[in-house]
Amino acid sequence: MARSIITLTTDFGSTDPFVGIMKGVILGINPEVDLVDICHDIRPFDVLEAAYLIGQAYRYFPPRTIHLVLVDPGVGSARRPLLVSADRYLFLAPDNGVLSVVYSKEESLYVRHITAGHYFLEPVSNTFHGRDVFAPVAGWLSRHVESTKFGELVTDYARFALPQPQRVNDKIVKAVVVRVDHFGTLMTNLTPADLPELFRENPAPFKMLVGKGEITQLKNAYADGAQGELFAILGSSGYIEIAQNRGSASQALGAGRGVEVAVTLQ
Amino acid sequence: MARSIITLTTDFGSTDPFVGIMKGVILGINPEVDLVDICHDIRPFDVLEAAYLIGQAYRYFPPRTIHLVLVDPGVGSARRPLLVSADRYLFLAPDNGVLSVVYSKEESLYVRHITAGHYFLEPVSNTFHGRDVFAPVAGWLSRHVESTKFGELVTDYARFALPQPQRVNDKIVKAVVVRVDHFGTLMTNLTPADLPELFRENPAPFKMLVGKGEITQLKNAYADGAQGELFAILGSSGYIEIAQNRGSASQALGAGRGVEVAVTLQ
Amino acid sequence: MARSIITLTTDFGSTDPFVGIMKGVILGINPEVDLVDICHDIRPFDVLEAAYLIGQAYRYFPPRTIHLVLVDPGVGSARRPLLVSADRYLFLAPDNGVLSVVYSKEESLYVRHITAGHYFLEPVSNTFHGRDVFAPVAGWLSRHVESTKFGELVTDYARFALPQPQRVNDKIVKAVVVRVDHFGTLMTNLTPADLPELFRENPAPFKMLVGKGEITQLKNAYADGAQGELFAILGSSGYIEIAQNRGSASQALGAGRGVEVAVTLQ
Repeated sequence: MARSIITLTTDFGSTDPFVGIMKGVILGINPEVDLVDICHDIRPFDVLEAAYLIGQAYRYFPPRTIHLVLVDPGVGSARRPLLVSADRYLFLAPDNGVLSVVYSKEESLYVRHITAGHYFLEPVSNTFHGRDVFAPVAGWLSRHVESTKFGELVTDYARFALPQPQRVNDKIVKAVVVRVDHFGTLMTNLTPADLPELFRENPAPFKMLVGKGEITQLKNAYADGAQGELFAILGSSGYIEIAQNRGSASQALGAGRGVEVAVTLQ
Repeated sequence: MARSIITLTTDFGSTDPFVGIMKGVILGINPEVDLVDICHDIRPFDVLEAAYLIGQAYRYFPPRTIHLVLVDPGVGSARRPLLVSADRYLFLAPDNGVLSVVYSKEESLYVRHITAGHYFLEPVSNTFHGRDVFAPVAGWLSRHVESTKFGELVTDYARFALPQPQRVNDKIVKAVVVRVDHFGTLMTNLTPADLPELFRENPAPFKMLVGKGEITQLKNAYADGAQGELFAILGSSGYIEIAQNRGSASQALGAGRGVEVAVTLQ
Repeated sequence: MARSIITLTTDFGSTDPFVGIMKGVILGINPEVDLVDICHDIRPFDVLEAAYLIGQAYRYFPPRTIHLVLVDPGVGSARRPLLVSADRYLFLAPDNGVLSVVYSKEESLYVRHITAGHYFLEPVSNTFHGRDVFAPVAGWLSRHVESTKFGELVTDYARFALPQPQRVNDKIVKAVVVRVDHFGTLMTNLTPADLPELFRENPAPFKMLVGKGEITQLKNAYADGAQGELFAILGSSGYIEIAQNRGSASQALGAGRGVEVAVTLQ
């Protein structure tokens, strides 16, 4: 049987042994597992950023992959640990909305409150459930213990209302920057479905106001256009991005997450 | 037979190929090994920080795990490469005190000076023993070559005196911050055994002076108390920590490693 | 059969899910693969830095290792994706010179333009060929699909002229800093063959002007000399480095990549 895959997405950073400790716990339960880091540099406590990031990544893994998502400011409080079974993937996360983008993309969801304490690492601390609750449950899940063994189904799990683009009128769409990537490229919440005028055979001219700049070009590749030029582009996640050829659009525009994107069609 | 596990803890950072090269050397000797990064962002040459970090992590791995710990300002000098066999784990590290916390926690220790040059990667450089000495020895160890083959036992290995809390009198305990984590939480060298008054059924009121602040609360979870509140908490490593709800205690208190923690019981 | 090894070297940083996504795609094609990160902190778009870094690392991996090198400012443009077969290794990279150091070290090279689209992840985006082209090709290669299946041989691939030390006269050699490592050590393009006078039995006295400093000592180990002392040393890659005992030579000298190194023999 192929090795199970467990991915890890956290705000634990790289200066502490936290991620390594979780891997040690998992390997102690299931030595035949592949551990893949997705990201550990989520901003501390930034549940929304983690929600977008795992939402962008999870579907590129093989079926039955277990995705562990730990941005957990409420660790040790009453917030519940969850095990979520979607069509092809399993997720382990605290019940704080960090799986909201996953919830919005998956049709069939079984969400369980993990209560089966005999799978935990005893004694369970109040400060590191990654080690004491989530890592051991991931380990046992990867050994094909059934989801139903870990706890009862719940339906009142936490879920953010994700910001949606607003069609103000025929000509104006208001959207928002949801993430800034390592290259300073701004990922918006706009998809081609929100702006079909830009993707038809004879695309409409447009103006896109973002931060202190105005974008009027839609390009096909980051390398299109001159060095330093700013433009819109359809990004690899299916969302429209604002990018700069060999530069940081975020810096050039003075714009980061949460900034409004106002599109005017001509 | 299950794959062997080798963990890596270094001050090599993330901008060079050093860690990758070591993994390449290990996999060339034993392709059936699991490599787990614990931390590569130890501050350059900070042997004490590495000592605390590996001391915090090593016991969460399965028995027979080989822990490679490389903070090695003396590489190429007379400092000896060591192979340390503890009850359940093996350690490879330079003889500079970086295993001091491990030594303080383990009862039965066999410490060997690695001299069996035929296991090394030839020619051995003077500047990268991680690649030329420690990685190949780790590879061969993971293939179950016996410890005794690598060199003779020594007893005069380097070992720090780790700072211990001082009970000044009935009412006053002086301690110190030994690490600051990614969230800005201060890990002290205090355990509940040093301050039983705080952990009994009716805990004594206390004042804890750290940096420019005064802590008077002991909480059970990071999420207890109001946002921005500072408090003491029993951390996941068994040491008392100073934390801030959704913030950096280090920043709020202007306090980092080495800062005194003065506890007064009322 | 032993698991195949795929290494990853990119400028993708650590705040995005890009590297994790590529690993997911690879594992979906070949679950029996070992994935090793060499470096993801290449400066954005810095093809030359990546060229030196992979050139320093690739030969420490077992034969048949597949090295994936992705610094790709031209993604989505006409630049070709390449599959390079050297004597013992395979490389996947964009055709932008990022393999120049590899090309300079390998005698027998077969360079192919990857065109076999049926191996790609459909639909191929214009912005993330790491995910859609290179990762799936790496996955299939690691399952021993023959190189010839991926595309035709080409000979006009991009290749930098790497800076070479210049012997100005009997007494003067001019060289350059090609990389600065995590410790602030300056790696030059000088090898002992360029300065045999320094490595003979009675080495010649010398002066080495770098940034605002003058180096006159050649040491055998970073720990030689007093704390803070600056010196030249033969580094682990075979190049002469400028280092500082327990400090950053780069900071002490105000010198980084591209800075001239002027050696005068006495």
